[in-house]
Amino acid sequence: MTKVSIIGSGNVAQHLIQAFQSNPAIELVQVFARNKKNVASLFDSNRITSDYSQLQIADVYVIAVSDNAIAEVSSALPFTNQLVVHTSGTVALDALNDANRRGVFYPLQTFSKDKVVNFKTIPICLEAENEKDFQTLNTIGNSISDAVYKISSEQRKALHVAAVFVNNFVNHLYQIGNEICDANSLPFAILKPLIQETANKIEILTPTEAQTGPAKRNDQTTIEAHQQFLTDKNQVAIYKLLTQSIQNNGKKL
Amino acid sequence: MTKVSIIGSGNVAQHLIQAFQSNPAIELVQVFARNKKNVASLFDSNRITSDYSQLQIADVYVIAVSDNAIAEVSSALPFTNQLVVHTSGTVALDALNDANRRGVFYPLQTFSKDKVVNFKTIPICLEAENEKDFQTLNTIGNSISDAVYKISSEQRKALHVAAVFVNNFVNHLYQIGNEICDANSLPFAILKPLIQETANKIEILTPTEAQTGPAKRNDQTTIEAHQQFLTDKNQVAIYKLLTQSIQNNGKKL
Repeated sequence: MTKVSIIGSGNVAQHLIQAFQSNPAIELVQVFARNKKNVASLFDSNRITSDYSQLQIADVYVIAVSDNAIAEVSSALPFTNQLVVHTSGTVALDALNDANRRGVFYPLQTFSKDKVVNFKTIPICLEAENEKDFQTLNTIGNSISDAVYKISSEQRKALHVAAVFVNNFVNHLYQIGNEICDANSLPFAILKPLIQETANKIEILTPTEAQTGPAKRNDQTTIEAHQQFLTDKNQVAIYKLLTQSIQNNGKKL
Repeated sequence: MTKVSIIGSGNVAQHLIQAFQSNPAIELVQVFARNKKNVASLFDSNRITSDYSQLQIADVYVIAVSDNAIAEVSSALPFTNQLVVHTSGTVALDALNDANRRGVFYPLQTFSKDKVVNFKTIPICLEAENEKDFQTLNTIGNSISDAVYKISSEQRKALHVAAVFVNNFVNHLYQIGNEICDANSLPFAILKPLIQETANKIEILTPTEAQTGPAKRNDQTTIEAHQQFLTDKNQVAIYKLLTQSIQNNGKKL
């Protein structure tokens, strides 16, 4: 059994606590939380600490805190030469204090407080400074997920940017769809099957193959009608830029 | 049994042929196809015609052709006072020739040749000029789908614009994600669980509730790092505009 301690009590920490706790291959030794309340319902309160000096021996310390707190938290750890990893998509491995052996354990998923996720399908992106530490992380990763990848800091940066496009920006387009429905007394529910199918399609087609619509087929009449229909300047700007981008793509082929 | 004939042989026509043919509530009388080859594998070849004068009596004639051909095809029909509908998201009801009773039977979904869709979950948007015709369309709609809506021409226009945002534009963002992966030797598969989860989330959260990411939390450091990372000017422009749009949203609240 691999001994793991989690430092942090936010969204990612909470999901990891649940995933590790129910896992026979892992012993969740402790959770460090400045605010015990956040995790009190998830874990044995006797093993929640808010005092770094109380941290016990573990094989891996997982720092799951906000990006800008990672360096500080890693410097506050009272021990040396242990394996310490963070869970961030954007922060480089070497942001961690080098008093300890460093690594990254980045679950590539969007975690919401109110929505349970199935870790089995979540890609875990691993990075370590040596092969032995990588193997330790690999063991933990494989115990909770079927999709474990070795990803360098540079690749992780690319992945995070790509994730912003396919998650944050996509969700924002859902929101614009919702707003257009609201403004026209249409239930947003009517768009949900299309949203699902759009996501399902790329399981079997490449996005290039799956592309349809007026921009793709250069249907200038429809494109102009749509732009005239939209009254929100911001929506018009997004419509224009993305239409142009789809059309330019066609030319590249 | 409602007698239906389909005029057209493209993507939508092909999916409707399959849905209607396997449906005990519907008798698919004929298919009109200029090019019989497109539908020869889907339907009894004796009942495929390319001659308008051969069209037999049906309760509904479904014109499933490209938007700009709808008016012409509806004018070419050799009969009058029959129920004739089109399947377009963008074309108004009155684009149909008024020699016949007019209606709209618009399945709101993205149809790809190579991907079978489940009609049960596809919203069908109906419009008719009188209640009796509406009920005929409603019967057909309900026989293939669990989500039938009465939608005016103006609402349908809004819906189509919204669909461009949540389908065409979303898919284009998937493509950009794919391109970023390719450029950094990352498998696009690594993003697919995130894409699925992003779509799944809005089944239980509103898009506003589901929004996460650097733009949402005004993380200017990450936003700037991402923009520096991107080398494609078009990707940078899209990143900037969508980030700004998410940030302005926050202010509106």
